[in-house]
Amino acid sequence: MAIDIPQHGGNIYKAAGKLGFKSGEILDFSANINPFGIPPNLKAHLKSCLDMCTNYPDPESNRLKCQLAAYTGVQRKNICVGNGALDLIYLVFHAANAKKVIIPAPTFNEYEKAARTSGAEVIYYKRPESKNFRIDFDELLSFSIEKGSDTILICNPNNPTSTAEKSDELVSFVKKAAQNNIKVIIDEAFIELTKNMSELSVSSFVKEFSNLYVIRAVTKFFGIPGLRLGYCLSSEANILEIVGKQPSWPINTLASEAGIVFDIDKEYISRTNEWIKNEPDYLYKELGTIEEIKAFPPETNFILCKLISRNWDAERLRELLLKDRILIRNAGNFVFLDDTYFRVAVKDRESNNCLLRSLKNIKWR
Amino acid sequence: MAIDIPQHGGNIYKAAGKLGFKSGEILDFSANINPFGIPPNLKAHLKSCLDMCTNYPDPESNRLKCQLAAYTGVQRKNICVGNGALDLIYLVFHAANAKKVIIPAPTFNEYEKAARTSGAEVIYYKRPESKNFRIDFDELLSFSIEKGSDTILICNPNNPTSTAEKSDELVSFVKKAAQNNIKVIIDEAFIELTKNMSELSVSSFVKEFSNLYVIRAVTKFFGIPGLRLGYCLSSEANILEIVGKQPSWPINTLASEAGIVFDIDKEYISRTNEWIKNEPDYLYKELGTIEEIKAFPPETNFILCKLISRNWDAERLRELLLKDRILIRNAGNFVFLDDTYFRVAVKDRESNNCLLRSLKNIKWR
Repeated sequence: MAIDIPQHGGNIYKAAGKLGFKSGEILDFSANINPFGIPPNLKAHLKSCLDMCTNYPDPESNRLKCQLAAYTGVQRKNICVGNGALDLIYLVFHAANAKKVIIPAPTFNEYEKAARTSGAEVIYYKRPESKNFRIDFDELLSFSIEKGSDTILICNPNNPTSTAEKSDELVSFVKKAAQNNIKVIIDEAFIELTKNMSELSVSSFVKEFSNLYVIRAVTKFFGIPGLRLGYCLSSEANILEIVGKQPSWPINTLASEAGIVFDIDKEYISRTNEWIKNEPDYLYKELGTIEEIKAFPPETNFILCKLISRNWDAERLRELLLKDRILIRNAGNFVFLDDTYFRVAVKDRESNNCLLRSLKNIKWR
Repeated sequence: MAIDIPQHGGNIYKAAGKLGFKSGEILDFSANINPFGIPPNLKAHLKSCLDMCTNYPDPESNRLKCQLAAYTGVQRKNICVGNGALDLIYLVFHAANAKKVIIPAPTFNEYEKAARTSGAEVIYYKRPESKNFRIDFDELLSFSIEKGSDTILICNPNNPTSTAEKSDELVSFVKKAAQNNIKVIIDEAFIELTKNMSELSVSSFVKEFSNLYVIRAVTKFFGIPGLRLGYCLSSEANILEIVGKQPSWPINTLASEAGIVFDIDKEYISRTNEWIKNEPDYLYKELGTIEEIKAFPPETNFILCKLISRNWDAERLRELLLKDRILIRNAGNFVFLDDTYFRVAVKDRESNNCLLRSLKNIKWR
């Protein structure tokens, strides 16, 4: 069974190549990454670690797991690491023995491929656009029971809608799911890029609910997705199942050294927190002044938009903006969305203003 | 189903930690890595690439695949890349839909875990010690047919025995296997670390036989296993199946930049080739002068040894050598071997002489 390969944002190589300029010359609003680049102390540390690549990485990632335990407040035995959060999504579907997966959508496209790679069937639950794509949990539970599902994957905050669910609602849902033998995977890849992650994250509940898996990314928040590092929080038994399906060296040496960032780059962390408190609202408000676009309110570092001007679709807009070396994400290939939707990352103020200027300069009719 | 996690060589973190010194202070003969460290031009290039980690890696690894195509002489469409050769072994078992796998052993332990992770059953074919662990291909074929196997994995050169099979024999075997609907996976992770790889490698036959998968490592030859980069050569259809089961960003940005090494570090390559022509034979000959040890003739950069002195086992020897800060690999956990076997990597002359001195200084009785 060959599976279609999902197209994602962030492929600046393809976009740049087509236009004959270099990837570094593009202002990339298509990938949702911290715009402040690599934390300076982490970068210096990684540079000094290149020589360590002459050895295999520590197969148990002991030091990294200690650092993640200190950072998350979750015990080491409840943590495993992977080659990016996405790698862990594939592994968790496999380890959880998922057969019928419910996925609230529109959401990150690759969940479907990940589930199907484990031989699972995927059924989408439609997030209602009229409620800004927020989940109705009672409805989701009935739907899941009715469909005979054994696993539900929720992206929180959700890509591409930038909506977020509260942890108390999620926990109560996880509890009801447990009563119905349904496992719940929550992808918190963007959770640190919110105003108040403590209201949203369910990470501290993994010791309480054995049907709960929380996926986290390290490299998204710290602006280094090229390093590939994610982790999973779950019960000890679940973690052992996942590790039992991983190759012995799941992450590279530099990724295994990245945990030091929590301690040494605190200024970067607070600068990012300050930015995430203000900048999404700023860009959202400014997008709201453009009549031809409806922007959905953001809970994290990207904004879903809909073109409401006739004769416009996301591909036309994307190609027009590329002439200004701005790359946006056509959201037309997300389930339940069509080619009037696009997604933009929230970047630093200067970049955001570039995007706004380009959008405001368009001759819409 | 929880699977035992294989113990490998190269875990200097554990060995060093136990004795209270740093991993860098250990002379590691337990992992089979090029002893010349990171090629200098590659290291400089990787340093300059850290900033590229602020973007996602190219999901299609286009440039790297071109470089691998030029290096191997195999077309780009017949190549895919993975997070280390081991990652690809897991994927190939899955993509090949392996159900009953024959593995000539003793061999690399983790093949079994990889096959079982895909739900396959594993049956070992015993490599005869009396023939220096060389495979009898007629026997292997009959054995595989008799057992109803659909997949055979051969490690060539083989870890830990350091034996190698000739390509003409392998190709004739692959042909007969095809006639019996059996797929053949050949792990050539050590193929460049041999005196004459063109006599051994079957890489150029992947376009001819759709039942053939060749796995290669990049980072082993170039002394950078911490970077995690391997590739698979197979028919276009097989490659598409594998990629269809991979997460969108299977390798990290620095790994995707490592392909440049084939062009810029030619001096390193010829120095390594020179070393591999002489050093394994030197260490083998010298080990042969120690009465208490039987060494098996090496075809690649490690040597399997057997303790033939009473009252000695590999664990006792390992712990004794650790006092000299030398780490060897107890080979007792390889299938068909017991705790009288150990394995040593071939390192540079100075290090090899350190090992030999320590071994010769032992009061064996």
